Amino acid sequence: MNSIEALLAKFISTRKKTEEICAPLEVEDYVPQPIADVSPPKWHLGHTTWFFEQFVLLPFDPGYRVFSEDFAYLFNSYYNHAGNRVLRPNRGLMSRPPVREVMAYRSHVTERLSLWLEKGDFEQEAEERVVLGIYHEEQHQELLVYDMKYILGNQPTFPVYGEGFRTKPVSEGQFSKVSSGVFEIGFEGEGFCYDNELGRHRVFLEEFEISESLVSNGEYLEFIQAGGYLNFDPWLDEGWSFIQKEQIRAPLYWHEVEGEWWNYTLRGFEKVDWNLPVQHISYYEAQAFASWKGFRLPTEFEWEVAAKQFDWGQLWEWTGSSYLPYPGFKKAPGALGEYNGKFMVSQQVLRGGSVATPQGHSRPTYRNFFHPSSRWIFSGIRLAK
Amino acid sequence: MNSIEALLAKFISTRKKTEEICAPLEVEDYVPQPIADVSPPKWHLGHTTWFFEQFVLLPFDPGYRVFSEDFAYLFNSYYNHAGNRVLRPNRGLMSRPPVREVMAYRSHVTERLSLWLEKGDFEQEAEERVVLGIYHEEQHQELLVYDMKYILGNQPTFPVYGEGFRTKPVSEGQFSKVSSGVFEIGFEGEGFCYDNELGRHRVFLEEFEISESLVSNGEYLEFIQAGGYLNFDPWLDEGWSFIQKEQIRAPLYWHEVEGEWWNYTLRGFEKVDWNLPVQHISYYEAQAFASWKGFRLPTEFEWEVAAKQFDWGQLWEWTGSSYLPYPGFKKAPGALGEYNGKFMVSQQVLRGGSVATPQGHSRPTYRNFFHPSSRWIFSGIRLAK
Amino acid sequence: MNSIEALLAKFISTRKKTEEICAPLEVEDYVPQPIADVSPPKWHLGHTTWFFEQFVLLPFDPGYRVFSEDFAYLFNSYYNHAGNRVLRPNRGLMSRPPVREVMAYRSHVTERLSLWLEKGDFEQEAEERVVLGIYHEEQHQELLVYDMKYILGNQPTFPVYGEGFRTKPVSEGQFSKVSSGVFEIGFEGEGFCYDNELGRHRVFLEEFEISESLVSNGEYLEFIQAGGYLNFDPWLDEGWSFIQKEQIRAPLYWHEVEGEWWNYTLRGFEKVDWNLPVQHISYYEAQAFASWKGFRLPTEFEWEVAAKQFDWGQLWEWTGSSYLPYPGFKKAPGALGEYNGKFMVSQQVLRGGSVATPQGHSRPTYRNFFHPSSRWIFSGIRLAK
Amino acid sequence: MNSIEALLAKFISTRKKTEEICAPLEVEDYVPQPIADVSPPKWHLGHTTWFFEQFVLLPFDPGYRVFSEDFAYLFNSYYNHAGNRVLRPNRGLMSRPPVREVMAYRSHVTERLSLWLEKGDFEQEAEERVVLGIYHEEQHQELLVYDMKYILGNQPTFPVYGEGFRTKPVSEGQFSKVSSGVFEIGFEGEGFCYDNELGRHRVFLEEFEISESLVSNGEYLEFIQAGGYLNFDPWLDEGWSFIQKEQIRAPLYWHEVEGEWWNYTLRGFEKVDWNLPVQHISYYEAQAFASWKGFRLPTEFEWEVAAKQFDWGQLWEWTGSSYLPYPGFKKAPGALGEYNGKFMVSQQVLRGGSVATPQGHSRPTYRNFFHPSSRWIFSGIRLAK
Ligand SMILES: [Fe+3]
Ligand SMILES: [Fe+3]
Ligand SMILES: [Fe+3]
Ligand SMILES: [Fe+3]
Repeated sequence: MNSIEALLAKFISTRKKTEEICAPLEVEDYVPQPIADVSPPKWHLGHTTWFFEQFVLLPFDPGYRVFSEDFAYLFNSYYNHAGNRVLRPNRGLMSRPPVREVMAYRSHVTERLSLWLEKGDFEQEAEERVVLGIYHEEQHQELLVYDMKYILGNQPTFPVYGEGFRTKPVSEGQFSKVSSGVFEIGFEGEGFCYDNELGRHRVFLEEFEISESLVSNGEYLEFIQAGGYLNFDPWLDEGWSFIQKEQIRAPLYWHEVEGEWWNYTLRGFEKVDWNLPVQHISYYEAQAFASWKGFRLPTEFEWEVAAKQFDWGQLWEWTGSSYLPYPGFKKAPGALGEYNGKFMVSQQVLRGGSVATPQGHSRPTYRNFFHPSSRWIFSGIRLAK
Repeated sequence: MNSIEALLAKFISTRKKTEEICAPLEVEDYVPQPIADVSPPKWHLGHTTWFFEQFVLLPFDPGYRVFSEDFAYLFNSYYNHAGNRVLRPNRGLMSRPPVREVMAYRSHVTERLSLWLEKGDFEQEAEERVVLGIYHEEQHQELLVYDMKYILGNQPTFPVYGEGFRTKPVSEGQFSKVSSGVFEIGFEGEGFCYDNELGRHRVFLEEFEISESLVSNGEYLEFIQAGGYLNFDPWLDEGWSFIQKEQIRAPLYWHEVEGEWWNYTLRGFEKVDWNLPVQHISYYEAQAFASWKGFRLPTEFEWEVAAKQFDWGQLWEWTGSSYLPYPGFKKAPGALGEYNGKFMVSQQVLRGGSVATPQGHSRPTYRNFFHPSSRWIFSGIRLAK
Repeated sequence: MNSIEALLAKFISTRKKTEEICAPLEVEDYVPQPIADVSPPKWHLGHTTWFFEQFVLLPFDPGYRVFSEDFAYLFNSYYNHAGNRVLRPNRGLMSRPPVREVMAYRSHVTERLSLWLEKGDFEQEAEERVVLGIYHEEQHQELLVYDMKYILGNQPTFPVYGEGFRTKPVSEGQFSKVSSGVFEIGFEGEGFCYDNELGRHRVFLEEFEISESLVSNGEYLEFIQAGGYLNFDPWLDEGWSFIQKEQIRAPLYWHEVEGEWWNYTLRGFEKVDWNLPVQHISYYEAQAFASWKGFRLPTEFEWEVAAKQFDWGQLWEWTGSSYLPYPGFKKAPGALGEYNGKFMVSQQVLRGGSVATPQGHSRPTYRNFFHPSSRWIFSGIRLAK
Repeated sequence: MNSIEALLAKFISTRKKTEEICAPLEVEDYVPQPIADVSPPKWHLGHTTWFFEQFVLLPFDPGYRVFSEDFAYLFNSYYNHAGNRVLRPNRGLMSRPPVREVMAYRSHVTERLSLWLEKGDFEQEAEERVVLGIYHEEQHQELLVYDMKYILGNQPTFPVYGEGFRTKPVSEGQFSKVSSGVFEIGFEGEGFCYDNELGRHRVFLEEFEISESLVSNGEYLEFIQAGGYLNFDPWLDEGWSFIQKEQIRAPLYWHEVEGEWWNYTLRGFEKVDWNLPVQHISYYEAQAFASWKGFRLPTEFEWEVAAKQFDWGQLWEWTGSSYLPYPGFKKAPGALGEYNGKFMVSQQVLRGGSVATPQGHSRPTYRNFFHPSSRWIFSGIRLAK
């Protein structure tokens, strides 16, 4: 019973948090999809709601009637098992339903699921789905921050979002050494984790060293000033092509104005703060920077093993590991099996968490992953050797 | 004095009319740009306002200060002379300024221009600019209707816009004969016209016949049912490629549902009314239909000469004429010279007017023009032989 | 009998001429298709042969067996009536059949058709097809020159083709005046013409003046040096976009090397000869140049009426007319009807002829047409006002 | 001395082998580049020659003069350090130099390098470069086979190449078990290896089983017949998109003709032999097949550890490992450092060798790598669990 109360409280606070994140937006900001990766905020609001409706209320609450047939179609993301989905790059064309109706949908589902939770009459699997739904919504809270920043940061007027989601200055750190040996990797214990963390297994690591701090904007500026973006030598071939094609010469949101570097932050257009950790760099840039410095990025296993030895959680940290299944990985049956496993190719693992990660959402075994070209995420660099 | 009063009244009613057209929209509908041709309603609202600010208030009202530097940048359409413009396909990403601010911009400019007009202290050229601005806004009113229909008609939920902009049934008409001879073409007389109608000149026309009525949905259905979209024979090569690439098998907004043809209209999703004139066909389709019937489309000169002999104004009528300058065409100096002349290649002329054309906006010498692939416009077919 | 002998002689000399044009090529030059517009020389050799096989030998010579089923498939160009065709942009991937076999195919068809002609036992229609085939092959002879030049001119080594196809210097000409009136346009008389020249009809022309000479490289250089490619003012909107997108700053084959203008000619890489007529410009460039000079391009009707008053035949001359059917235009039944009519949209008419046009191939009523972006053709500029 | 003789013999036989592989081609087959991945045979011939000229003769033979400045430009592949390169997708447009001259270039370099080798007056590094050049040429021999097959297999006439490069039937194999433990991975000992195999290091492997045989065409047919290409369930998300976009429903070169499966082989168009190992499948297909069977692909470490327990070398075997640097990986300085390291992202490792791999070219530690979408390579499937 106690656990149900806690779950209900967590559910309600999570739902509310999502809405608070969006509060500073204009109605119009909920609509555009400037690039395929960035979803309209309205879509996140509907999609996280749809998840609870589709995977909890419909299968487990016998009296529940779908709020709107259309919404099931519009707010499915990538769950082929759950029916046809709106093709991703077209989300920004859906002006309907209006935000107001999406909010009504949210309230309806929040209320109905709360009532159903309060009754407490459900199986273990149903409860697990609610927990998954909460974690799912937390993931989308973080994406919301990325996407809002991208939408606002591409308005010619650079509108201010407000406080929140700020990183702290980094001081130049030391390298910390870890001796070779066999280590256990993957989730263990009680509590929630994703399927991709399961399959705890042993890896052998050769001795390595890992930096105790993230790379700062100031250190990254040296790379720019040394012609880092103009010399193919430290770059992966694919990375070099990418920066040529996209004409990239600095982190995302940086603009050179009359010889000075400014950047868009959620507080508007500001001069770059050299003490903050460098943010909004792709894997290609992270790798090139590390290579130029004579270092490398840690593997995800090195990171997990060494994580106790440094602070983390400001920015997701690109690792040198591709996103692949652990030995013994099993995907869940049905639509929930599409959550993680099907993305296990052409993605790079990031570890840690960011200032946009909801509190308590991450853990040392958490495996985040994005395409190596991703720059709109809250990504940073930690060096290893 | 009288004329200034009339101009002021016309100005104010035009401004109001634009806003009335948008009234049934949700705020969210003002934002998307689903295809490059379709501009967000918000953009039309700002752009028509910018036109008055840029070409009347700034040059002719000495006390006028620009409402917002950003708006000048955001709401320029294609006037290279007037500074950098937002690249057309990105309009749908501009969530800012919000609709509310665009409306404030509208009010501000409407008010300031009204005051300035009331004072009556201006040159001939300034007055001509106001008149041009009114015609410009009327053109955008019509585009607004096309664009709103496209945005709403591509929502999976097919939302209802409301009454208005309805065509009337057509009855099968006769062909009317015109004997060969030399005719005068182009605008003559007092009143407003565009530069592309000037250069009144003589053309020789061989004898021709022209239909007194537009082609109906029912007649067009015969073409579809006879495999018109499946046989390259009546098609222009470019048209045939176009319908293959875009997978076109019927007019825009038509959907075959369980063997019956429905279409999206501003009143929602309805069965096709076979007596209405066929609408939303490209030039390619109009030409292929005419060719399949053993006829052809009239030239714009034939149309102009014969216009007294039939009713027109329901739908813009594709002609067989490409959009080219009349002998002696001169483009206006400066930015206003970009209004028409620079589009004189790869466009096809349409004549007449449509139910979305503001009253009094068209005339028999009016030359409308669009790319032959355009289907979202209110276009129809009149046959000739 | 005499006429059959003459036809046979013409047939044989035409076939031989095509092969002579290709003689300076390496086997490898017969293969690539660098852009969609440019066909591999091998393809022209096969296609012109296929035309005689498909449209003469198969229907009219009862004993004829097809040389190779595959060739019918590979060497059809755009005749939907005659079966599936190789998609145009893939021609450059067809390394087979080797040139040697295409030449065998040519010999076979030339021989068989010669024997059949010698027997003289055929209908009028068959003879007309042979004549059409000869004109068709002559058209492809000209395209062969364009395409060879493009293939060779895009080798980093700029190989020499050899003599031939040279233009002569132009001296600055006067304008010649034509008074207004009704004129007859279109082909009349005996001899061969294409269907698009038929439908002789009357047009009324207002008084105009037309230059007696083509624009020279020297005059065009003034346009470049005055920033003609950097200022949107004289350009059509579509033309301005085109030169931005393609990064065009001079005619095709011009290269600026250390401050001096060189160009690729069939004689190799040479300094631009300022007295030669400017060549390899698109319609957009021709129109922008004319507009910058304060003139315009003649219409195709003006050109035809005035043609006796000046020399022509060095370069095809862009006219201000779009390619549209003449009144009463009728396309031939079946595959031959696809020859001309289906291209009557989005093309601009060129009149005259070029140094690559086979002797006797052109005439004052001849209507050549290309897309306004075409630059690899032998095009030039004649001004009008 | 003995070793120099052996090196010389190996050098000469390698050069000759490359030319023998091309012998059945027509001159025209040397030219096209049907897709970006497939290079023209002419290019391989020139490029392998350029490698010896650029990296051996120029730096180490003082009397050597470059054969042709142009060739250095044309036949560089991806070595940014060695100057500008022809952009990869344009190789098929280079009809010049003709094959004949490329062969002359080959003879020249083979001869000069042979003379220089015979003198025996060179440093260790120079000898290492020759060895690398031989391995480089062997790699291109294998690519030549892939590329020739692709060029010929995409001719509508399916020309026969001839004997050679045949796989042998596979019999259904058992799974072989390997117990968990720490294993050494990477190259050790004398002899040649690439930089990507160095950095021998320890890995811990959990117990696994690996199949002793490759998957056969017959087994793969079951997957097709069970709707494997029509059901997203076993597919990676990126793989599912890939097969939709490319409309893939079977391995490359398979064609269904009247209900029977045929495929293009180097012997022409033949019925699929069900006992041969399935070939020409992408990583996506290999992974989906394995997943559908309830198995998975081995990692490259499992493969290396288990390699003694089965026969390999018929087809390169997709592993579940992404191509990443080994601990302590160091790329060589200068242009040779671009050989391997810069491709370490978005690629999947293949292990083993194929019937197109030159004898003695592979070894158990050899790491081949391709993009997961690659289908024109000689790839196959081995299952693990
Ligand atoms: Fe989701
Ligand atoms: Fe406008
Ligand atoms: Fe042809
Ligand atoms: Fe290479």
